[in-house]
Amino acid sequence: MTTTDETQAARPAGRPRSARAEKAIIEATLDLISESSGLGELSIEAVAARAGVGKTTIYRRWSNKEDLLVDALATLKAPLPALAGRSLREDLVTCAEFFLSETRDARSRCVMNIAMNEVERHPRLVQRIRQAAIEPRRAVLTALLRRGVATGELRADLDVPVAIASLIGTVVWYVRGFEPGHEDLPERAAEQVVDHLLAGLAPR
Amino acid sequence: MTTTDETQAARPAGRPRSARAEKAIIEATLDLISESSGLGELSIEAVAARAGVGKTTIYRRWSNKEDLLVDALATLKAPLPALAGRSLREDLVTCAEFFLSETRDARSRCVMNIAMNEVERHPRLVQRIRQAAIEPRRAVLTALLRRGVATGELRADLDVPVAIASLIGTVVWYVRGFEPGHEDLPERAAEQVVDHLLAGLAPR
Repeated sequence: MTTTDETQAARPAGRPRSARAEKAIIEATLDLISESSGLGELSIEAVAARAGVGKTTIYRRWSNKEDLLVDALATLKAPLPALAGRSLREDLVTCAEFFLSETRDARSRCVMNIAMNEVERHPRLVQRIRQAAIEPRRAVLTALLRRGVATGELRADLDVPVAIASLIGTVVWYVRGFEPGHEDLPERAAEQVVDHLLAGLAPR
Repeated sequence: MTTTDETQAARPAGRPRSARAEKAIIEATLDLISESSGLGELSIEAVAARAGVGKTTIYRRWSNKEDLLVDALATLKAPLPALAGRSLREDLVTCAEFFLSETRDARSRCVMNIAMNEVERHPRLVQRIRQAAIEPRRAVLTALLRRGVATGELRADLDVPVAIASLIGTVVWYVRGFEPGHEDLPERAAEQVVDHLLAGLAPR
């Protein structure tokens, strides 16, 4: 059974050879998803072949395909970096920089898009992926924003879910405007986004 | 050759039978993309079979697969609705409501994700899709925000690309938080997002 703790925290490596096999299996799974149309078609056989391991090596660690998928997807969503806690703005910039570099990783974006597209066909699987990969971050951001409300750095009537959506969504959409063929992303993009969101669109 | 005008404006219907065939071809193309892993695998043969038309019917309207794909994707991104022009806030809410209902269309989201995932493999095709489907909207939003700056409803130093990203990205990410298994999206979600973005996260 995969728990949030297992997927979010670095696992004890065990024997080095087994850690190497596990990494190869996860990478093979992500590669195959990114080349596929969905999670349904992935087979343990194909993962074993791509990773250069036997099927038993996979089944020793994951009892079924769904567990492997949840763990593989969770590795794409590493825990948020440590926050300095000196100022809300600084911590928001740290988070924005993190989302920004993640958004620029084409395979990660592709695989998460494919996974989220499966919500109609495999709702329970997508729900598990969300719990393992997305909810832990949402909890960190919620705590961060509530702290900002408590210190008076953020508005007292802040709508936390809208604020989280604005932080992640703005970063992702802003980066998308700078795909190949467009000019480079500004160096201070994360700060620009955070300062814009803090100040709001309306004049002060 | 597909121009932005052709894909964005309603085309003269011609003979009704030909308009019906065109609609069937576009729908078949979008269905096949949503069931596929990418744009590369789509074949004119498969579209003809799914739409129940001959290949010549397709080639009479589109000289190649790329032109068909660009037109099909552009139909997913209808022009923004007419804006009343009475207040910036009202017009932003109209846009947010439009993005919100579009985000809830699973096939549209899935197909656009698949298309955008192709940016590495088919950069020129993705560039054409962006030009046909995304740039016209970006132009409307840019004009709207500049008008708001001119009337003083928006900050004089507004960063327009960040503001556009915040409007679309926040709506999309907010809607994503309400996938199956979660509570319903609030009825006034579009207004909530716009008021949040106008006011900003920081206290006034």
